[in-house]
Amino acid sequence: MGKVICAGLGPGDPDLMSVKSDRTIRGAKHLAFFRKKGRAGQARTIVKDMLREDVIEYPMEYPVTTELRFDSDEYRQLMVDFYAEWADRLAELAQDHEVVVLCEGDPFFYGSFMHLHTRLQGRAEVEVLPAIPGMVGCWNALDTPFTWGDDVMTVLMATLPDDELVAHMDRADALVVMKTGRNMPRVRAALEQVGRLDDAWLVEKGTMPGQRVAKLADVDVDDCPYFAIVLVHGQGRRPEADT
Amino acid sequence: MGKVICAGLGPGDPDLMSVKSDRTIRGAKHLAFFRKKGRAGQARTIVKDMLREDVIEYPMEYPVTTELRFDSDEYRQLMVDFYAEWADRLAELAQDHEVVVLCEGDPFFYGSFMHLHTRLQGRAEVEVLPAIPGMVGCWNALDTPFTWGDDVMTVLMATLPDDELVAHMDRADALVVMKTGRNMPRVRAALEQVGRLDDAWLVEKGTMPGQRVAKLADVDVDDCPYFAIVLVHGQGRRPEADT
Repeated sequence: MGKVICAGLGPGDPDLMSVKSDRTIRGAKHLAFFRKKGRAGQARTIVKDMLREDVIEYPMEYPVTTELRFDSDEYRQLMVDFYAEWADRLAELAQDHEVVVLCEGDPFFYGSFMHLHTRLQGRAEVEVLPAIPGMVGCWNALDTPFTWGDDVMTVLMATLPDDELVAHMDRADALVVMKTGRNMPRVRAALEQVGRLDDAWLVEKGTMPGQRVAKLADVDVDDCPYFAIVLVHGQGRRPEADT
Repeated sequence: MGKVICAGLGPGDPDLMSVKSDRTIRGAKHLAFFRKKGRAGQARTIVKDMLREDVIEYPMEYPVTTELRFDSDEYRQLMVDFYAEWADRLAELAQDHEVVVLCEGDPFFYGSFMHLHTRLQGRAEVEVLPAIPGMVGCWNALDTPFTWGDDVMTVLMATLPDDELVAHMDRADALVVMKTGRNMPRVRAALEQVGRLDDAWLVEKGTMPGQRVAKLADVDVDDCPYFAIVLVHGQGRRPEADT
């Protein structure tokens, strides 16, 4: 009996993955990872200097969807079929082997592996190795405490409707906004509306080669990759008597 | 010229600290860590099998404050003096040596090191090594994806006023509540008010020996340590057309 081990990779610097993920990946005989067709894949790139010579690789290539809207039924069906097929293949492989699946960031925190995790329940033993979430690598790149005292921290996807972005940004102390990309003009407008634009940072490729850190107010919003993260630091909320 | 390196330890299992923190701690000649007087200290306990034989240790013992209210001027002054004194000592030591300071979880995420980080600015070179936050270790212990899709995640301190707890719990999808302890009856009441008590988990000592996982509704609220974390999973918020 083998099993499926999902190894969280952390924010991108191989030195920041856990001792356990590091050991697991270096020992992997069967290695699966997501990538876009024709690309090396970010996860595979992170581990490139760590693999056994005799490793057998299983690139799980996302179906090509450039012609499809992300919210179309066709797109949804393609993705469902894709995850189902790979869950089948991994469950089959895990009958006899230990298969390591790479996942950027922490697998249980908005990770792509969870679509397989759900589908593998009851069909294979699955172990998930936690990791430093990408956002933690990004706030580390800013070299300033992110949350203090009784700060409330909220993590938002930029894909949310404008009114929800504004309501959450207004109420939280520390803010993380993910899935930015083409939503950046809306993120910026929402931050401006609640008076927090001047405190916002953009971090791209945190902890990785090519890391970019900038004040969001200075950034060309039409030039933001999907994986860039916006951060607003908490200021250390304290009981009133303490301020 | 030396420097101060704050090594994030992660959630508690030494195997889950980063490769970089692991290497830094194993190589440390000068090692500082917080602890309560008369205790071994959680941080020091995590690294107990990793230290050089000739390591020089600097236990930073919190002042004894059992007689004082946490919101009193006397308590505040004692803590200010304590951090100032250790910032002086570390800055002095860092003139000639590399000093490693241990910090549980991720140092920039509600970490105790930030009180020193602020006071060391301009007086010593400081490097902070990120780590898996304690909450990530806790949700990993529940072996279920914590956030999906467009889920909003909010991290709350149980010390907040009741109305703020309720407002945030009502609005977020995934929830983390820290600093629980004697605030647990209020946390439980707030979750019940927004109809989420039955989905809440309590995790104590996540990833460590003695790990305890329970449905919050089944727990005796008078028996919750300060560092136990309450978690409510997101359900994978999607655009309306997608549900």
